[in-house]
Amino acid sequence: MDFNPIIIGIAGGTGSGKSTLAENIEKDFKNNITMISHDYYYKSNSKLPFEERAKLNYDHPDAFETDLLIKHLKQLKKGEIIQRPSYSFEKHLREEQTYPVYPKKVILVEGILLFENKTLRDMMDIKIFVDADADIRFIRRLSRDIQERGRTLESVIEQYCTTVKPMHEQFVEPSKKHADIIVPKGGYNQVALNMIVEKIRSII
Amino acid sequence: MDFNPIIIGIAGGTGSGKSTLAENIEKDFKNNITMISHDYYYKSNSKLPFEERAKLNYDHPDAFETDLLIKHLKQLKKGEIIQRPSYSFEKHLREEQTYPVYPKKVILVEGILLFENKTLRDMMDIKIFVDADADIRFIRRLSRDIQERGRTLESVIEQYCTTVKPMHEQFVEPSKKHADIIVPKGGYNQVALNMIVEKIRSII
Repeated sequence: MDFNPIIIGIAGGTGSGKSTLAENIEKDFKNNITMISHDYYYKSNSKLPFEERAKLNYDHPDAFETDLLIKHLKQLKKGEIIQRPSYSFEKHLREEQTYPVYPKKVILVEGILLFENKTLRDMMDIKIFVDADADIRFIRRLSRDIQERGRTLESVIEQYCTTVKPMHEQFVEPSKKHADIIVPKGGYNQVALNMIVEKIRSII
Repeated sequence: MDFNPIIIGIAGGTGSGKSTLAENIEKDFKNNITMISHDYYYKSNSKLPFEERAKLNYDHPDAFETDLLIKHLKQLKKGEIIQRPSYSFEKHLREEQTYPVYPKKVILVEGILLFENKTLRDMMDIKIFVDADADIRFIRRLSRDIQERGRTLESVIEQYCTTVKPMHEQFVEPSKKHADIIVPKGGYNQVALNMIVEKIRSII
């Protein structure tokens, strides 16, 4: 099968706007793009009670089953259909349900730690890092976690200060070095979005 | 005349690779691109003796005749031919000679402080900031100033520490905020170059 898709990675800190950018790209190429989030591959910690799970460090590279993501990307590159896992942020649990992902010409992967893993980043043809000021990122995360993930203000601040921020500084920020381009004002940067879209258009 | 060129600004600190990136872009679109450097517009300080001129702060926004650059860009946008000034880094002097610049579909402007000036940056359709680590930038500047501009090691270090670095921190680095995309590893970043080239191709 003469199928040679390209893999575009979109990384960046929490609240940087990487999902918004990825969604905006996806919109333009509905039938030719497959989008995968590293978050789908959070490890299952179902043996721990909820209170314990809530305290785990979800911003460390070890929190993800990255080997499975790598395996799936290789399969998609070969033109195979994969069954991706899914994860519930409300329950801090991997769901039983998996979802089929179909191979497309462009595979868009997004996640905070995509460029931290060498095997993963070496698979990517274009590495985009979405950037935003730390305070703005915190504000976005706060709004999202309260509105969409049922968290309390206190729990968001606690998690941000104990794991999110230190892990950002230790793993996410240094991984920016591996990016091909850095997109500031991520989610709402029309010029950068247009450039990425034109690049994809030239491939498809 | 139905002539609506786009203006692409490439900014970044000394030694970041912005000229290399600009030249690589220019190569691909020889007949459709006009390249202008902010450096051409250094103010003339011919009344001062050479020793005094050598000590001036060339990294402050006031060192440039930016109003003239803005005027010229407006003329180019209207399809007019301009006569750009030129500047000698060996003599620290504006040359008598001017050079004609012809209006083209894409006007590429490069310079360390392009995005610091609001009028200038508001004229730009795409703002690209080329980034590199400070030590690497110093090393590149050192090599260039010794090889191409006849400077001594001591004079390069002196100028770097007294004006280049403080002005970078005061004006260049903060102006990164205005960029649409940031290009790390500027001169040798093939993926970013390809993206910019595709974008331009879609315009021409």
